[in-house]
Amino acid sequence: MKEVFLPRLRNKNQNVLQKSLFVSLFCVATTLTLYSQGPPQDKDAMFLRRIYDVALTEGKSYAWLSELTTVGFGRLAGSPAAAAAVKYTQEMLDGVGVDSVWLQPCRVPRWVRGEKEQVRIVLPGKKFIELNAFALGNSVGTGAQGITAPVVEVSGLEEVEAMQEGALLGKIVFYNRPMDSRQINTFHAYGGAVDQRVYGASRAAEKGAIGVVVRSMTTSLDDHPHTGSLAYIGPSDPIPAVAISTMDAEELSKMLKKEAVSIFMRTTCETLPDEVSFNVIAEWRGSEFPEQIILVGGHLDSWDVGGGAHDDGSGCVQSMDVLHILKQLGYQPKRTIRCVLFMNEENGLMGGRAYWKASNEREEYHLAAIEADRGGFSPRGFTAEGHESTFPKNFRKINEWLPLLEPYGLNLRMGGSGADISGLKDQKGLLLGLDVDNQRYFDFHHTAVDVIDAVNKRELQLGAAAMASMVYLFDHYGLE
Amino acid sequence: MKEVFLPRLRNKNQNVLQKSLFVSLFCVATTLTLYSQGPPQDKDAMFLRRIYDVALTEGKSYAWLSELTTVGFGRLAGSPAAAAAVKYTQEMLDGVGVDSVWLQPCRVPRWVRGEKEQVRIVLPGKKFIELNAFALGNSVGTGAQGITAPVVEVSGLEEVEAMQEGALLGKIVFYNRPMDSRQINTFHAYGGAVDQRVYGASRAAEKGAIGVVVRSMTTSLDDHPHTGSLAYIGPSDPIPAVAISTMDAEELSKMLKKEAVSIFMRTTCETLPDEVSFNVIAEWRGSEFPEQIILVGGHLDSWDVGGGAHDDGSGCVQSMDVLHILKQLGYQPKRTIRCVLFMNEENGLMGGRAYWKASNEREEYHLAAIEADRGGFSPRGFTAEGHESTFPKNFRKINEWLPLLEPYGLNLRMGGSGADISGLKDQKGLLLGLDVDNQRYFDFHHTAVDVIDAVNKRELQLGAAAMASMVYLFDHYGLE
Repeated sequence: MKEVFLPRLRNKNQNVLQKSLFVSLFCVATTLTLYSQGPPQDKDAMFLRRIYDVALTEGKSYAWLSELTTVGFGRLAGSPAAAAAVKYTQEMLDGVGVDSVWLQPCRVPRWVRGEKEQVRIVLPGKKFIELNAFALGNSVGTGAQGITAPVVEVSGLEEVEAMQEGALLGKIVFYNRPMDSRQINTFHAYGGAVDQRVYGASRAAEKGAIGVVVRSMTTSLDDHPHTGSLAYIGPSDPIPAVAISTMDAEELSKMLKKEAVSIFMRTTCETLPDEVSFNVIAEWRGSEFPEQIILVGGHLDSWDVGGGAHDDGSGCVQSMDVLHILKQLGYQPKRTIRCVLFMNEENGLMGGRAYWKASNEREEYHLAAIEADRGGFSPRGFTAEGHESTFPKNFRKINEWLPLLEPYGLNLRMGGSGADISGLKDQKGLLLGLDVDNQRYFDFHHTAVDVIDAVNKRELQLGAAAMASMVYLFDHYGLE
Repeated sequence: MKEVFLPRLRNKNQNVLQKSLFVSLFCVATTLTLYSQGPPQDKDAMFLRRIYDVALTEGKSYAWLSELTTVGFGRLAGSPAAAAAVKYTQEMLDGVGVDSVWLQPCRVPRWVRGEKEQVRIVLPGKKFIELNAFALGNSVGTGAQGITAPVVEVSGLEEVEAMQEGALLGKIVFYNRPMDSRQINTFHAYGGAVDQRVYGASRAAEKGAIGVVVRSMTTSLDDHPHTGSLAYIGPSDPIPAVAISTMDAEELSKMLKKEAVSIFMRTTCETLPDEVSFNVIAEWRGSEFPEQIILVGGHLDSWDVGGGAHDDGSGCVQSMDVLHILKQLGYQPKRTIRCVLFMNEENGLMGGRAYWKASNEREEYHLAAIEADRGGFSPRGFTAEGHESTFPKNFRKINEWLPLLEPYGLNLRMGGSGADISGLKDQKGLLLGLDVDNQRYFDFHHTAVDVIDAVNKRELQLGAAAMASMVYLFDHYGLE
């Protein structure tokens, strides 16, 4: 489109332009009036407006994310890249100038991918078709020789579970139920398909399979394999598992409809001894109620194959930026604001666990904890959950703030918050997740293309502003 | 993030997974219950759900857009590419199988860019710095020899208007007021800066300037020049004008703070004699009230430098898809649904004018007209306007439909609709604009990077579904 506010820009239409300019000036005047009035609500509105001004002009999220995804590219827990990410974010938080920054140790699993995966459809005459594949996180490797076996396509766990004992003996099982693209919320589509990735290997092993190929978890049809963790459950020995791109999954399925197909797969991934890693924590002590903590956080680790820009570099830099933005505004919190960058969300949650354990043992009270871990997209608001004894009252309370949030397109709804803060529920505060437009998330999730170029600066900074606004409101009003 | 619905996927957490699966199943059950009940509202909800299902699984918007931006790359009105776009969309609409498809002629200006622009900062010793530039649409050229002149940076029209007669004699004026990144709605930021592009040349010419350089209209800092139309107004002879990228604007401004700078610019753009072009119209006659028209549309022309994917190929294919989606559902409209692809929105609006003129002369009644021209991003709802005598009642009426729209993240608010439908206001129906998340729009607007890869398929298809839903509700309930 050409314009909304200056709809026609030709000689004949100067009057339209002038009218539009008048309307613009009128809006500015109205806004100024609004922000110059006295009552508390207007002061809050004015403060939120200043938060957004700073976030959109001096916010550091994007610059930090650009660095973090470079120095900490592929920062899976326990890796040198993860250690570099800890060091970098600690330094940046030191520079923000809050009261203290420290590292909280946690023991993390150390899974390594090894050599580039080979996954091939075997054709007659020593020919083959190479598939775009990643080993799944936590998977065992195939051994250096690789494995070759006939493929059996299935639509999910139930189909495997219904099979007779030994029905998949010596086979490679191909889980190919797509994410349901009819879901409006892509996380719902993910939730409806990811059981194949997580439990597919164990279920298939129970029926005798020797390997698993899973269709990548994405709503798009492309060539990117999406990694992600699996869990070995049940009595069977672990078998190796890989994800292939959705395009390759479509091709493989098409071939299988015509003829029997064998696959060769070779992965050298393995789990090394645990490492010590760290959560990175920055704390800004409250002046009146320092014992009431407002947490903002994301997870610092990412998968090893990409920059982890959306997952979850975005949530980390936004949480850091909350401190920076409020500092820029000369704010002095009444309550304690804590920024926590959690380690090992992707394949262990050991950072989150260490944090809850210490916090619960010290009998801390997190009045509110906000996790950002749904990508650095346009914010839509917050999802909230909490302890059943306090949640209804607390949720009603924050809904009073909606008129302040709505000018920024933010809503509040009940829903999950974030894995890393889930263990704080018994402290009876509110747990929130930053809610964003999630249509593009699974284009990048757990892939090599989750890099800084996939993030829009304004969308990212608006998320930081949304979080800072919520932190301000929690700090200013508390929950009583 | 790893998951929202299956937050922890390790052995220890099977119970969490099971709980999550239970929640999912519960949601499905609730949904099914909702859609199986009898009263009208539930039938509407069910029909909207079917619209979304079709749009997300069989929608044609994305495939059509891919073709349109290829066969009609750079389809400025009057160009061969625009003619190809007319032919292509006419064929596609023929294939949808509604009652009739026709071309409505309109006379359009024919502006051509000519040879690649040269815009250079002149350095001593015959050296220079090349700037990323596009001539502005409608601009005259510099002549084959180009022009060289000292640069004067200004912050806007007002600064030029306040100057004395002849103050800019022989100068090139550099308009460098950025779009205000603090605006949440990027269209507001655009509206606050674009007067420089539109009227900058005429205002500068009045004070004696011989050329104009304008900072590109975008919220981002990058190397892409953004073209767009200017208007020559007032008594002065037209002078040539170009837009340079925001990065180059920053550099140029930095140099000017240190020393006097001259610029060489050479453009060979010109306006050729008018051409005859066409609006493409497809009509599906209503069975009960065929005289009541519900229009969906976008503009078929684009700037010459890019694919016009967001601006406004998206709006065209979404409008076409509305017919396709409803056809797929076996729908038979009671009112007449008309898809109109308007020609020449970018530099003349002659398609829109031809359409209104014919429609008003035939005393047609557009019950509702919906224009999509804000990019193929995630839909947020609709902005609505109308004739003052009917708007309040009509707007109240459609607000009754909000409960049906909210599950899809759609809202209704008062605001502008679209340039191409603005002349239908006196017919006293409602005029709507598809409202979308606009944070990324000005990264692509009027640039060479407004191509299919900048569009996300789901976001685009959701917009088509939103429009089809609104068309269904207008058709089903009318406005009385």
